[in-house]
Amino acid sequence: MLEFYSANGTCALAPHIALREASADYQLHMLSFAKKEELSEPFLSLNPKGRVPALVTDKGILTECPAILAYIAQTYPQSSVGMPADAFDFAQIQSFNSYLCSTVHVAHAHRMRGSRWADDPAAIAEMKRKVPETVGACFQLINDEMIAGPWVMGEQYSISDPYLYTLSSWLDGDGVDINTLPNVAAHFNRMQERPAVIAALAEQSESSQ
Amino acid sequence: MLEFYSANGTCALAPHIALREASADYQLHMLSFAKKEELSEPFLSLNPKGRVPALVTDKGILTECPAILAYIAQTYPQSSVGMPADAFDFAQIQSFNSYLCSTVHVAHAHRMRGSRWADDPAAIAEMKRKVPETVGACFQLINDEMIAGPWVMGEQYSISDPYLYTLSSWLDGDGVDINTLPNVAAHFNRMQERPAVIAALAEQSESSQ
Repeated sequence: MLEFYSANGTCALAPHIALREASADYQLHMLSFAKKEELSEPFLSLNPKGRVPALVTDKGILTECPAILAYIAQTYPQSSVGMPADAFDFAQIQSFNSYLCSTVHVAHAHRMRGSRWADDPAAIAEMKRKVPETVGACFQLINDEMIAGPWVMGEQYSISDPYLYTLSSWLDGDGVDINTLPNVAAHFNRMQERPAVIAALAEQSESSQ
Repeated sequence: MLEFYSANGTCALAPHIALREASADYQLHMLSFAKKEELSEPFLSLNPKGRVPALVTDKGILTECPAILAYIAQTYPQSSVGMPADAFDFAQIQSFNSYLCSTVHVAHAHRMRGSRWADDPAAIAEMKRKVPETVGACFQLINDEMIAGPWVMGEQYSISDPYLYTLSSWLDGDGVDINTLPNVAAHFNRMQERPAVIAALAEQSESSQ
């Protein structure tokens, strides 16, 4: 059985939803960042990065959101998040997910994790100040150019959908009004109705108590 | 034929090497950042992100380094960078590449591209100051935990190798001495000897003149 490590408010929600979409057999471990469980010895010995998501398979551990998402797509080909047969279609999904991890998530991280890139409190505050602008610009591009509709890739739901949904859920905290982004808002509302999303959120909440 | 857009000193060198490894039929377009060609109308109409790499296929354009690398792996399965048959092996490659794009490249980008995340010159200078520490920490983890040797994934060369090589080539500019990282240095030297690397560097240089 798969062992899946997550924490509240992180991008691990995306592969968590994908596991539900795939009806995968997994055990959920919610780490508490408040208790610094991601930096505890048992977890670090499993994942030296001290980050979530992490997926333990019978072949070993996998880390990094886009890699775990693509692994779920590849190993549950018949599910709603199954990997498309065509290499170009898969590459488009991967391109979208790469943009989320390397640009959008990074823009967001400058709000709470500025100490990764600077020590001076004034510099950290300045990064935080710019987050609504940088995250807003990323999501404007997503809104205008990247959502084919009704799902990110068009008629076919994919691993890009739970990933976008997860990052969209951070917009309010990042100071960006989702209602100024109609395609993003419509996608977010559409996602909220999916049984896999409802189930993942409920399970996350139960397992965190 | 594939059309490949690159620029000197960027991560586009990684898929460029992969195209050579795959003996792909492609046309190279080197954009001049000094002339801001990546923000010119012809290129922006092709790629609204205004970034490289970009690969134009007969089905459309692909962007983002890890996505282009995986597309090359999938479409040239018999080459030295061909996609492995096993989903877990592929996921490990993807995990490594995700770490490079979302953490290592991002740490590096704070040296020259701080204005992406802050406007205040003092904050931008502070980000730049910390780059040797942050890039150094990323590469320490790569050196200690991630290079199976002789290639990143072990005996099997993969798309992770040109990607690591490309980011390793930035270490000197980032203020990190590669000689303090023996596994990274050995990998870098091993890569320098590959005909595909020598050919890509020569072609890049010729096409930039």
